Amino acid sequence: MKGPEKLSDNIAEFDAIVKQTAVGYLGIVTPDGYPRVVPVSFVAVGQTIYFHGATSGEKHEAFAARQKVTLCIAIPYAAIPSYWRAKDYACPANQFYKSVLIRGTGRLVDTPEEKAAGLQALIEKHQPEGGYVKISADRPLYKKPIDEVAVYRIDPVKIDVRVSFGEKCPAEVRRELIRKLEERGLPMDRETAEEIRKTLIL
Amino acid sequence: MKGPEKLSDNIAEFDAIVKQTAVGYLGIVTPDGYPRVVPVSFVAVGQTIYFHGATSGEKHEAFAARQKVTLCIAIPYAAIPSYWRAKDYACPANQFYKSVLIRGTGRLVDTPEEKAAGLQALIEKHQPEGGYVKISADRPLYKKPIDEVAVYRIDPVKIDVRVSFGEKCPAEVRRELIRKLEERGLPMDRETAEEIRKTLIL
Repeated sequence: MKGPEKLSDNIAEFDAIVKQTAVGYLGIVTPDGYPRVVPVSFVAVGQTIYFHGATSGEKHEAFAARQKVTLCIAIPYAAIPSYWRAKDYACPANQFYKSVLIRGTGRLVDTPEEKAAGLQALIEKHQPEGGYVKISADRPLYKKPIDEVAVYRIDPVKIDVRVSFGEKCPAEVRRELIRKLEERGLPMDRETAEEIRKTLIL
Repeated sequence: MKGPEKLSDNIAEFDAIVKQTAVGYLGIVTPDGYPRVVPVSFVAVGQTIYFHGATSGEKHEAFAARQKVTLCIAIPYAAIPSYWRAKDYACPANQFYKSVLIRGTGRLVDTPEEKAAGLQALIEKHQPEGGYVKISADRPLYKKPIDEVAVYRIDPVKIDVRVSFGEKCPAEVRRELIRKLEERGLPMDRETAEEIRKTLIL
C-alpha cells in the first residue's frame, strides 16, 4: 500500500481544497477519442474519490473498463488587473488559484456496503446539516436506490497540488498586492490577500 | 464552413454561459495516457475558444499536434437538500447547473496578428474596465510578449449545452422549489428560482 506521502507532497492543502469544493471536473477518454470533461459532485474519503451517477453511458463505460481517469478541483481566487502592476501594458493581468489534479484508476463500486458508504460520505459533505436517515445497505428504505445507482470511485495514482500566490514576485510587490486587494474588497480578495501573506511568512 | 446552428442547438444559452464564466476546464490526452484536466481563463470569439499559456509543456504539445481536445464550462446553481422533497430519504438531494461541453481541434495560433487579437479578446473579457493600451501586433510595446507567449485556440466540432432545472418534475413540485429557494436566499438561490420559473412558462 502506498502511503499518502507517496501520492502528494502537500496533503494538508489537498484536504482543505477537496473539502471546500463541491464540484470537480472529471476527465475520461470517450470512444470518439476525446478527453471529455464532466462536472461531478464528489467527495474525498481520505484520498479515494467517490461520486454517483447513471448505470450506463460514456462515464459508466470508462469506469467499468477501469480506465485511466483524472479529477481536477480548482478554487479561483482574485483576478489581478494589469494596471495594478503596469500603467499601459496589459500583460501583468493574472488570476490566482489553488488546484488539485488527481490521476488515477476509475472503477465501479460493486458491493452494496461500499456503495452505501460512498453515498453516505457524499451526502455528509453536500448536506452537512443532516435531515435524512443514514444510508446503509441493510436498511429496506435504501435497498432499491442502492441497487439502481452507480457509485464511481477513483483510486489515485498521483496527486498534484498547485498553490500559487506570487511566490516569485519580490516581497515589495506582494505587500502592495495585499494592500490593493484589501482595499478593493471583491469576493475572494480578502482570502487571496491572506494566501499572499502566507508566502511572506514562510 | 459549418454555421453555428450545426454545432449547437442552443447558441443563445451557449453565449450567455461562456460570457459569464471566467474559468473553463480543458481536457487533453497526455503522453502517459491520462485525460488531463486543466483550468484555463478563456474567451469565446463567436464559437472559437482562445486562451494563452507557456510555449512548452503537455498542453503546448497537445495543441502543436492538433489533438482532439475539449473545454467544459459549468455554472453551479443551487443545491437542493433531500429534506425539501422527502422526510427521511436522502436520495432527492440534487445540484442544479448549466454546462457547455465543446469538442474540437486544438491548435496553436501562429501569426502575431491572430495572437494579438486573441489576447485582446481575453483581456476585454477579464478586465472589462480597460486600463491598458490595446494589444496589437504592430505596437513595439507588445512585440516581445506576443513572441514569447503561446496563444491556444480550439476550433469546435461539436457543442453540447446542458441546462437542467427540473423540467421532468411535476409543475407543482417546481413551484414549491421556487418558493423554498426564494425563502432560503443563499447565493444562486434567486437565479435558480428564475431558471425554474422559465421551465414553467415554456
